[in-house]
Amino acid sequence: MQEFAWPVRVYLEDTDAQGVVYNASYFRFMERARTEWLRQRGIDHDEARERHGVLFVLTGIEAHFLAPARLGDMLAVSADVVETRGARMVFRQSIRRADEAREVLCDGRAEVACMDAEHGKPRRWPEDLLRELSKR
Amino acid sequence: MQEFAWPVRVYLEDTDAQGVVYNASYFRFMERARTEWLRQRGIDHDEARERHGVLFVLTGIEAHFLAPARLGDMLAVSADVVETRGARMVFRQSIRRADEAREVLCDGRAEVACMDAEHGKPRRWPEDLLRELSKR
Amino acid sequence: MQEFAWPVRVYLEDTDAQGVVYNASYFRFMERARTEWLRQRGIDHDEARERHGVLFVLTGIEAHFLAPARLGDMLAVSADVVETRGARMVFRQSIRRADEAREVLCDGRAEVACMDAEHGKPRRWPEDLLRELSKR
Amino acid sequence: MQEFAWPVRVYLEDTDAQGVVYNASYFRFMERARTEWLRQRGIDHDEARERHGVLFVLTGIEAHFLAPARLGDMLAVSADVVETRGARMVFRQSIRRADEAREVLCDGRAEVACMDAEHGKPRRWPEDLLRELSKR
Repeated sequence: MQEFAWPVRVYLEDTDAQGVVYNASYFRFMERARTEWLRQRGIDHDEARERHGVLFVLTGIEAHFLAPARLGDMLAVSADVVETRGARMVFRQSIRRADEAREVLCDGRAEVACMDAEHGKPRRWPEDLLRELSKR
Repeated sequence: MQEFAWPVRVYLEDTDAQGVVYNASYFRFMERARTEWLRQRGIDHDEARERHGVLFVLTGIEAHFLAPARLGDMLAVSADVVETRGARMVFRQSIRRADEAREVLCDGRAEVACMDAEHGKPRRWPEDLLRELSKR
Repeated sequence: MQEFAWPVRVYLEDTDAQGVVYNASYFRFMERARTEWLRQRGIDHDEARERHGVLFVLTGIEAHFLAPARLGDMLAVSADVVETRGARMVFRQSIRRADEAREVLCDGRAEVACMDAEHGKPRRWPEDLLRELSKR
Repeated sequence: MQEFAWPVRVYLEDTDAQGVVYNASYFRFMERARTEWLRQRGIDHDEARERHGVLFVLTGIEAHFLAPARLGDMLAVSADVVETRGARMVFRQSIRRADEAREVLCDGRAEVACMDAEHGKPRRWPEDLLRELSKR
């Protein structure tokens, strides 16, 4: 099975004085991958609000660093929905070096809640939105 | 004459793999100093819009790098209005190392335009806003 | 017992188009608090390497978002070591609004490994370094 | 004549609470374009130091904002060397919306100095490096 992976080049802006990618930059990369995963399914924030009446709200993120990425590296950032229950959706994300060996540099996770756009309360994911997300 | 200077500590987030502060970070520092200069005069963006009916719109910024700042450095970032004419306000800003020698590391400039909050068109700075800004 | 808390003002640079603090910015805030917690104990990265022959390597970070911080907010970011075992040190961190109510906006965690500076391998934290860290 | 232009998607990380791209983000975009322009000519920082014994040092940058870029926009960032004299190289850079109209959103400029990698002093750009840069 082929998972979704978004290519990311490491620029100077992403690195720090320890000579590697700065810790918070990995979350910027993971958010790009989730955004592009949604875009591929025809969904963005405006779309979700206007057509489905819901907001995606990020409720938790984490990253485990296995090996550092460096200036000039080409990375592949995955985004895989591993759980959808009630108001909750969980992404598993990995950041690999985009070469032959495809070493995993960072193992991540993001939890997103479905909120009613009008009342700002958690609600079940709309069935038609879930159908659109399960397309590839 | 004592100019306004805002203290900024250099953290890992501000640096890059060349071991110094990343170029765009200096603009983040300069924007903090302008924000605090305004706050000291009792002005923020909401205030300007609600009480004066205007928006501050950044129209140009520049920086000249004389010497690099490094991880852990304590900096002093100035913000000095050097011109106010028509819809235009020009800040001169310097970034110095906050020690005895006070070496200038970066020489900056920011140009801000006054826009009518309702019609989004440039307009002269309101006289009462200028009076508040000239207080110290 | 009074825990360590570092003050952080929210600037434009920290926010995003959803009108709140951008997710990765919370990790920049938490890293500032850990850095200042160490500085208060007289330790920085150079110090740890030169005097103790070790490196601090960040191996994992996480954040759970309870309520959003907004432009202009003053925050208090804590850093508390809750576990030190073998090569591992765990910080519990919270981000609160720095007002009367002190609402918790974000609940975080950072895991740091002690690495031998020469061979780049995990090792137990040096006893004298732990003693310096337990001072306040 | 076709100038070099690097595609940049605007993500949440690039925007601020005013709903548009944050000022310092434009400099991150311009630096990506300069890096890719160099990469296209087979040059990066290691290359320049090892093969030519020189460092590229950024000595000044500026941007003039004509219209705001927004979340989700696709941009095209140009990088054009407009002057090379002595130790100095000047890039003219524009950021346009990557659609039919190609509106210019930001007009930028970057000045880079050639430094001797060994003595850290400004020096003339090596002739063979200039030849490689003039290829397309």
